[in-house]
Formats: sequence, structure tokens, C-alpha cells
Amino acid sequence: MQKILDYIEAQKENHLSQLIDFLKFPSISSDSKYNADMEKCSNWLVEHLKNIGINNVKTYPTAGHPIVYGEWLGAGKDAKTLLIYGHYDVQPVDPLSLWNSAPFEPTILNNRIYARGTADDKGQLFCHVKAIEAHLKTYGKLPVNVKLLFEGEEEAGSNHLEDFIIKNKEMLSCDFSMISDTEWFAEGLPTICYGLRGIAYIEVKVTGPNRDVHSGSFGGAIDNPIQVLAWMITQLKDRYGRITVPNFYDDVVPATNDERENFKKLPYNEAAYKEDLGVGELNGETGYSTLERTWVRPSLDLNGIVGGYTGEGAKTIIPSWASAKISMRLVPNQKPSQILKNIAAYLRKLAPPTVKVEVQELHSGSPLVVERDSIGIKSAVAALKAAFGKDVVFMREGGSIPIVVLFGEELHAPAILMGFGLPADNIHSPNESLHLDNFFGGIRASAIFYDEISKQ
Amino acid sequence: MQKILDYIEAQKENHLSQLIDFLKFPSISSDSKYNADMEKCSNWLVEHLKNIGINNVKTYPTAGHPIVYGEWLGAGKDAKTLLIYGHYDVQPVDPLSLWNSAPFEPTILNNRIYARGTADDKGQLFCHVKAIEAHLKTYGKLPVNVKLLFEGEEEAGSNHLEDFIIKNKEMLSCDFSMISDTEWFAEGLPTICYGLRGIAYIEVKVTGPNRDVHSGSFGGAIDNPIQVLAWMITQLKDRYGRITVPNFYDDVVPATNDERENFKKLPYNEAAYKEDLGVGELNGETGYSTLERTWVRPSLDLNGIVGGYTGEGAKTIIPSWASAKISMRLVPNQKPSQILKNIAAYLRKLAPPTVKVEVQELHSGSPLVVERDSIGIKSAVAALKAAFGKDVVFMREGGSIPIVVLFGEELHAPAILMGFGLPADNIHSPNESLHLDNFFGGIRASAIFYDEISKQ
Repeated sequence: MQKILDYIEAQKENHLSQLIDFLKFPSISSDSKYNADMEKCSNWLVEHLKNIGINNVKTYPTAGHPIVYGEWLGAGKDAKTLLIYGHYDVQPVDPLSLWNSAPFEPTILNNRIYARGTADDKGQLFCHVKAIEAHLKTYGKLPVNVKLLFEGEEEAGSNHLEDFIIKNKEMLSCDFSMISDTEWFAEGLPTICYGLRGIAYIEVKVTGPNRDVHSGSFGGAIDNPIQVLAWMITQLKDRYGRITVPNFYDDVVPATNDERENFKKLPYNEAAYKEDLGVGELNGETGYSTLERTWVRPSLDLNGIVGGYTGEGAKTIIPSWASAKISMRLVPNQKPSQILKNIAAYLRKLAPPTVKVEVQELHSGSPLVVERDSIGIKSAVAALKAAFGKDVVFMREGGSIPIVVLFGEELHAPAILMGFGLPADNIHSPNESLHLDNFFGGIRASAIFYDEISKQ
Repeated sequence: MQKILDYIEAQKENHLSQLIDFLKFPSISSDSKYNADMEKCSNWLVEHLKNIGINNVKTYPTAGHPIVYGEWLGAGKDAKTLLIYGHYDVQPVDPLSLWNSAPFEPTILNNRIYARGTADDKGQLFCHVKAIEAHLKTYGKLPVNVKLLFEGEEEAGSNHLEDFIIKNKEMLSCDFSMISDTEWFAEGLPTICYGLRGIAYIEVKVTGPNRDVHSGSFGGAIDNPIQVLAWMITQLKDRYGRITVPNFYDDVVPATNDERENFKKLPYNEAAYKEDLGVGELNGETGYSTLERTWVRPSLDLNGIVGGYTGEGAKTIIPSWASAKISMRLVPNQKPSQILKNIAAYLRKLAPPTVKVEVQELHSGSPLVVERDSIGIKSAVAALKAAFGKDVVFMREGGSIPIVVLFGEELHAPAILMGFGLPADNIHSPNESLHLDNFFGGIRASAIFYDEISKQ
């Protein structure tokens, strides 16, 4: 391994400069005006993988954005096969005015690289690409077979990946799947994530009058769609953090005592948590700690709302409609399809006869918890410890990676979530960044991991 | 009068074509990107008034948009003096996609002229301009002195008119003020409006975390500003239409029995009202009819709301903030300044310690009821009856014209509200229009009114 690690050390400047090229593409998957950039980004990735020695690399078109796939199977049939998943698409960047540097002009400051997609997920994905390069350039081979699957729709619901996986099961068959798209509990504390929440995301639109009408002429006589929607929103969750959608908690599996005890040992600092967010008080489900509220309990949040006049100054209308984006984070064994059905029916039932209500399902994904004593997890723990020189802790995570569940169901491949992000990375927010120690360490850990798992 | 009416009849094509020129200016006062258009529109109006024989016409700059003022005082010191008020600014046009023709390319269809500002208020203002022209071109004089005051900020709160009036009391001194900016109860039913609701308009912003954060990582642990704002909105009005802001109804003067009986005689058709709006049911304050709810009872409406991600697709954030525009329509003797103070204090009190709340006052105006048996109202009734050949009815109106109150307070001039709009005009909405019979009839009625009031 030492020669490989030496190569990684020697190539630091090159690796960083290549990452910068990768980050410059505004690969925002959820907004169709970036479609051409998505294609350019996927083509760049294909060329890059070819250059480091990956075989059969190409883009696979979908009804949405292309999937990039390539493989190196030179370890032979008796060696283990690892499917490495990542995504080259990124979140939208608004509000743009809050960025300190342009989101697609990567900027290095205080040992961090700032750009949309640095931590989520281009930077983490690139750790594996550079680790594979290190093996191939040093010894001309890897101790495991690797299959690289990089999608372009993770931030838009991964709508076409399931279909791709089902149609290409043989090509994608593997012993383990590896996803580097999670974050550590704290800086300097290498972490394995063994649980993810699922998601169910809808948009609800409330329509009152068939046009915007004058609030003087009609005010007092008709229901206002914004006010009806506001009332409906208050019927979804009470002020004690308890979700009031019927049957919402039916299938929730409580966390074990062992898990809850483990969480208590983590260096969670509520004062720092509040200060980082700039909030005076937290608020969540009564009877649970903050870590439990975000990792092992489901949640419901409004992600956006719009209705009526939102420009400068005053406009005296009762708007025709108002709409809201609502998402729920789910825990085992909640079923997204059932949850979507329940909330849609509930919202329609809440609607008074003065308005029309439309509910649209935007996307969903199942929750997941993986076994902490599997071969894959053990290898990841060893790799992280060796790469960063520190003990490894376990955590669960509030976010969702629906694809991890799919790998389990369709490919029967246990998932390993070895991430390199940090809480301060501001993913999904302005000024997203990635710590450079974690980028370079992530390359080392990935390279060591291939070695570790090949020995198990 | 017959010669004057003949002139008006002969000039129909010219008058319409001049109105079209006036309507082409996108004079949207509440959006600063139309500032240059506002200036062009005011200059056009100045030139037009000069051409018909109005004296001392010019624009008076304000900190906002210019005021156009001119006068014809040839009737002499013993004649009555009439201050004619109108506004050349218009409402914003969004949502633009719902217009059947471009809002600033006037289009004639089915005896109506379609454009933003046709009814509110360029078309109505222009009736007076053309009526004055008819007198001056026919006999070289008017039976009354006229002062024309056309402002450019009515749709943005008339922020600088009060100051202008107070500073120019002598120039503006008059016996009556005339405002043509109201509508008839129904097509073919000439109407005098004797009451207007006041207004109090605020914007409230709720801020939670100091940035948009990932709804997976933080969902369940912190309050969501959209949900807090939604809850605050529900605390302003109950489902029975009763406003729950403390002390809101303290100063409300109930309508008289005579008024309520009069309203019952008007041809109000609830089925047609609902069908026009496209709503299944109405909803308003228990114990009051629709006309009472909109004319003699105060109301509270959300005019706009925005927060979080409102673009295409799904974005998984808890937004940093959400804001709403809230306006109340007031009736005598509610005081806007007190109402603004009460709602701001109430909103701040409602806010939980998890968020920050900012309340901004946008504008306000007092409610008004004028005596139905005054000389001015009697002359207007006679003029409408002669011009349209039909009996005149009385109504109150749900909208607000704060300036009418100001004329009473500062100039001691009773207001006459002789409007020519119709309920189907879609003011403040897409596809605003003005019935051409009401435009031409409005010119006749204005011309006759000057004659009638001069004889009283």
C-alpha cells in the first residue's frame, strides 16, 4: 500500500486541479435550463475515467439525465466485486446572493474548497476515482473488481436509475455497494453511517377564485387560498413536533437502547448547534434528543411556499392559488408509497368546499439501517482508521439516499456508507464546501479500503 | 348642453384613439423598473391637457412619481370650484400568462377595451378630460372652475400626495372634490358610491436558521419558518370570518338599518357571484350578507406569501425565512395607525422563541362614508340619470381610496364618487377592461355634472 499512498501524496496538486475542472460544470439536475451543462459534465467524467484506465466507460441516456458507467474487472472472477456509486448532479444554488464566491468558480480558502457540489457529491465521488487511479498507475491493477456507477439525477429524485439498475442487473452484479455521500459526526472524527432516513415529497396546490381578485372588492366574502393552505399546513404537525397525518407512526421501528446509549456518547453540543444555525431555541418531538429527532424519528417540513404577489411593494389582491412543497423524512419500517397516499388523502379531506386541492407526488425513497458487524463495514472502519489515524464512530443520518435501498433489493449487495463530508460543509445551502484534509484523506481511505476488503 | 353632447358624439373615434395612446404606457408605480415609463406617461398627460386648453399644467416631482396638475379658472371667483382627482399609474400585470392580449397593447373586443388601467383609472380619469374638452371646444368656457390633480402613486399607497396637498392647499382649494374611480353595482345600473373601506397593509417576515439548511439533516430538530408563519396566519382570523387580532373591532360603526335594507334591494345574485369567481362556496363573517361583508364589515386577507424553494421540482431544504403580505380593509371609525400598531404587536407576541419576526408597514388609508343628500351627490345623480337615461342607485364599496379622506381633512371639500366602472372590469386582475358604453357615457355624465353643480 505504501507505494500507492506515496503516489496519492505526490499527485495532490493534480488531483485538486482536476476536481476544480469537475466542479466548474453547473450540473443542476432539477432545472431543465441546465440540461446542456449536465451533458457536458457527464462527457467530461467519461473522458476522465477512460484516461485513468477504466474500461467500457460511456454515458447511458435516460428519459432524464445520462448515467455514467464504467468498470475494471481485471482482478478476476475469484476476487470480490465492488459497485461504487456517486452522483455528478448538484443542488440548485439559489439564493445566489448569499454566496461569498460564485458557486461554479471553485475557490480555496482556509484549507477548504468552496463550490456547489464539493461535498455533495462530486468531491466524495472523486476520492474513489483518484484512489482507483493510484492503484492502476502504481501496480497496473486493483485487488478487487470495481464497477463505477455515477448518476445525474440524485438531487432530483433518481427517477430513472431504478429502471437502469433493473435492466442491467448482470452488468451491475456485485458483492458490495459503496456510497461516499455522507458526513462525519464532527471534524477529526471519522464516522461510518449505518442508517438513513427515507423521504416522501409532495406538492400541494390550493385554488380559490379562478383569477386574482381585488382584495377590497372581495375581501371578507370569499376564502383566501393562502389562508386555507396555511391552515392545512398547521394540521400536519402540532407544536410539540408530533406529526398529525393519520396513521403516520404505524410502522415506525423504535431505536434500540444500545443505539440511544451510543448517540449519547457522541460529542453533541447543543449550544454550538444553536449558534451555528443562529436560532434562539430548538423545537422538536417531545421526549427525544436532537440526534434522535433527526436520525431515528420521522419528520415533516415545508420546503417551499408561494402564492399571490411576492414582488416589491404592495398589491391588493386575493390570489387565485397558493402552493407548497412538503416533504417527510421516514424511518424503518415506514413505507413511502403508503405515506404519500395517506397525506394526499388527508390534505384532500382537510380542504373546505371553498377551494380545490391538487396533490402531486414529487419523489420518494425508503429508509434503511445496515448491520454494523458486516465484512464491508469492518473493512471501511479499518480503512478510515488507517487513512486518518483516528478511531471510528458510528452514526445514523437524517438525510436520504434512496438508491442504497435499491442496491439491496435489486442487486442483493450490502451497502457501505463511507463518507468524507463534515457538518460545516453547507450542503444544499449557499457556500457549500469540502475540507481539503477530508478530500485527500478520502482518497487514501478509498485506496486502503479496496485492499482491506480484498483480504476479508 | 345639447351642443356639448353633439361634440362628444362627433368625437367618439378621436377620444377612443387618444385613450389608446394613454393606455400604452406601462405606468406601473409599485415596481421601480417602470420609472422611466411613469415619467413618459406623466409628460404625455401634461401635453394632452395643454392641448385641450388647461392652464398652468405641469408635472410636480415627488420623492416617488410625479404629480400632474393643471387648472381652468375662467368661470370666475363667484363660480364653484371643482377639484378632479384621478391616477395615471396602474397595478402590476402578473401573472402575465393569463392575459388574452398584451396588457399594454389596448385591444377592442365585444364593445370593451382591454388593457391594464382601462377601468382603474386611466379610462375614468379620461372621461373628465374629454368632458372638459367638450365644454371648452364648444363654448370656450366651463360653468365651473376646474382643478385637475392626477397622481402617479395610487396603486403604491399614494405616499407623496398628502405632502403635496398639505404644501399646496391654496392652489388646490375647492368647493367639491370629484373622484371617478369606482364601479357600478351592475351593468346598466348607474351607481353612486357613498362609502369606501380603509386599508392597513403590512409585510411580515419570519426568520429561522441563518441559512437554508438540509431538510434531512435538520428536519425534526428545528422550527421551520414556513410552518411558524402558517400558524401565525391562522391566528389572525377564525374559520367563521371573525378577525382575531386583539381590539380589532373596537371602533367599528355598524351599518344603519336603512343601509342594510337598501342593500337587500340591489340585484345581487349569489349563484352568479360564485360562478363568476369559480368557487364552490363563499365564506365570510357569520351573520352578514356578502354585500355587508365587503362594504360595511372589515376584512383581513393574505395578498402574497413566499418562502423556500418555489422553482421546478423538489429541493430538500428547511428555508431560512418566509414572508407574507397581509392587508386589512377597514370601516368607520377604525383608525389605520392603531390597527397597524395592534397587528404588529400581536404578530411579535405570537412568534415563538425559535424564530425572529419583522413587521413592516407598507401603507394605510382611512375608511369613509359621505352624506347621500349633499349638493354634490344630488348633482352627480342628476348627471348620471341624464347621461345614461336610467335611475341611479346607491352603494358602498369594499375598496379603498385613501385620498378621498385626505381631501375632506385638508381641503374641507366634500367628496363625490361618480364612477363608471363595472364589476366585470377585472381591475387588479389579468384582462382588465372598460365597457365602451360606460366610457362614452362617462364623458357625457361628467360634462352634464359640471353644468348641474354650477346651478345648485
